[in-house]
Parts: sequence; C-alpha cells; structure tokens
Amino acid sequence: MDTENGLVVLGLDPGSRCTGFGVVRERSGQLTLLETGTIRPKSSEGLSLRLGALLTQIAVVIDRWSPHEAAIEDVFVARNTASALKLGQARGAALAACGSRGLDVSEYAPTVVKKTLVGAGRAEKSQVAFMVGQMLGCKPQWAEDSSDALAVALCHCNQRRLSRLTAAGR
Amino acid sequence: MDTENGLVVLGLDPGSRCTGFGVVRERSGQLTLLETGTIRPKSSEGLSLRLGALLTQIAVVIDRWSPHEAAIEDVFVARNTASALKLGQARGAALAACGSRGLDVSEYAPTVVKKTLVGAGRAEKSQVAFMVGQMLGCKPQWAEDSSDALAVALCHCNQRRLSRLTAAGR
Repeated sequence: MDTENGLVVLGLDPGSRCTGFGVVRERSGQLTLLETGTIRPKSSEGLSLRLGALLTQIAVVIDRWSPHEAAIEDVFVARNTASALKLGQARGAALAACGSRGLDVSEYAPTVVKKTLVGAGRAEKSQVAFMVGQMLGCKPQWAEDSSDALAVALCHCNQRRLSRLTAAGR
Repeated sequence: MDTENGLVVLGLDPGSRCTGFGVVRERSGQLTLLETGTIRPKSSEGLSLRLGALLTQIAVVIDRWSPHEAAIEDVFVARNTASALKLGQARGAALAACGSRGLDVSEYAPTVVKKTLVGAGRAEKSQVAFMVGQMLGCKPQWAEDSSDALAVALCHCNQRRLSRLTAAGR
C-alpha cells in the first residue's frame, strides 16, 4: 500500500542474542531513514521473558511508525539443529509481533538482498553497510545487525519499485 | 506462587502447524482441568500472520485464566535444520506470548514428562494420554497435542509439589 506520505517499510534481522531493525520511508523515489537499532534482551532472564521483551520492543517500533510492509531475510543455512531452533525462536517472536498487528512480512534470500544493493550476491557485509549508507544519504554508524535489517528493508523497497514498473509497462 | 485458590499452570506443546495448550489447577493436591485445546492457524495465510494468530490466541488463554506458571517440553531432536527452524518459530511465538505477560516458562525433557506421569521415560503417547485423564479425573477426549500440553503442565505441578516437600523436609 503506497500512500501520499510514501511507503514505510520495517526491516528485521533477528538473531538468538540480538535483533536488528530498521525503518525506512520511500517517497517519490527518495529514501529516508526513520529509525534503526538493535534489541538485546537481558541474557540473565529466562527464555520466555527474553522473547517477550523482543516481541514488546518490536511492537513499540511498529506502533511508532505504522509501517505499511515488512521484510526479513530468508534463512537458508544454520550450523546445526540447535542453532536453527534458537534462531527460529527469535524469528518467531519477531514475526509474531508483525503478524499480530496485521503486518505481512516478505522474505528475501541473502543473495537477493546483496545483489539488489551491491550488485553481487556474494558481497561482503562491509560493502552492504556502505551501500545502505549511500542509499539513505548518511554515514553508516550503526551496528551490523541494524545494517542488515536496513538492507532487507531497502531490498524490499527496490523490489516493490520494480514490480510497479513491470506492472506499468504491461 | 501458590495462592489460596491454588496454583494455575499453563502447558504448551507448540508445533509448526498446530499448537496444543492445557490449563490445570492444583489446589490442596487436587488437580482440575480448566481448559484445553489446539490452535491451528490458517495454512493459507503468510508466516507472520500465522505466528501472529498463534501469539494472540495464547494471549487470550493467558488473559482468561491468569496462570501463575507455565511449562513446555524441551526440544532435543529435530529431523533437520529446516524443521528445527519451523518448530523454533512456533515455540518463539508461544514463549513470547507468555514472556510478554511476565510469565516464566519451565522446560522439561520429554523423558522427564513421561517418567513423571507414567513412571517410564519411554512410555507410549497413548499411555501418557491415559494417565493425563486419570490424574484429571476425566476421559481423555482431546487431541494428541492437547494431551501433550496437559502432560507437561501436570509434570510441572508434580515437580513443584516435590520441591515443596523437599524444602519442608530440610
């Protein structure tokens, strides 16, 4: 849904210890950074309380910016089933925060995100961070998780623009 | 926290398609079934909306019964990383629902649950379901996921009783 005020997109990069988020706005092709940060629940607390904190903090970001759409990276590989389970739990809390507010989340393969931003599917993280800064017109001073969350949000903006152009050219 | 009205415990058995839940009350050693059921989000909806529905429905159960404590089975094995990720996502949404309401969730190994209820760590599911019915004084007419959720809730009640007895005997 594009509105007169532009399209607001939330990008998420959940991890078992730390979850990055980024909110960007695209209006008439102009990209703006609205907010970015990382959520790091207290490691001293029990699992459900940590996931509850993650859920609540993402809900706060959603309520603050009312994003129209959201995006997350697909997970292709995990070292083993134990790490896949931990990552899945963080993803589950983050996705449920979006879903409980009616927000559908598009998933993108990491290679698609990198290719969209840098032009190469095997780009380094530093190259991705650099391009995120270039696209948003600011110096990338954020943590790696925030950068990855912004990257997937920007990838989504780009894919939406492409699909609009394709639809217009039909 | 035991109250005059007894201890209310929520048991959860999350799965990628279907999540069982069960709420029991223990008062003066008497166990009562308060509610049990399964949550099955629409498979036609996107991942975040399904996880959001799971979150919301567990939150409704929590708000209805105000459980003092909650319990879930530990996950030891998953067939592969893909199924561990899917299971993790459902667990994440379910645990976050508890955590966001300040509810800590105790985890029990499946063998501990079976041993507590049936006396054998390798008991069949049908034996567990039978014992759940016996302990709650009703015929087990619920689905397998509900039965497993009730089993872990009853296991938690038993462990709490044991720890109280141990503390009293010191």
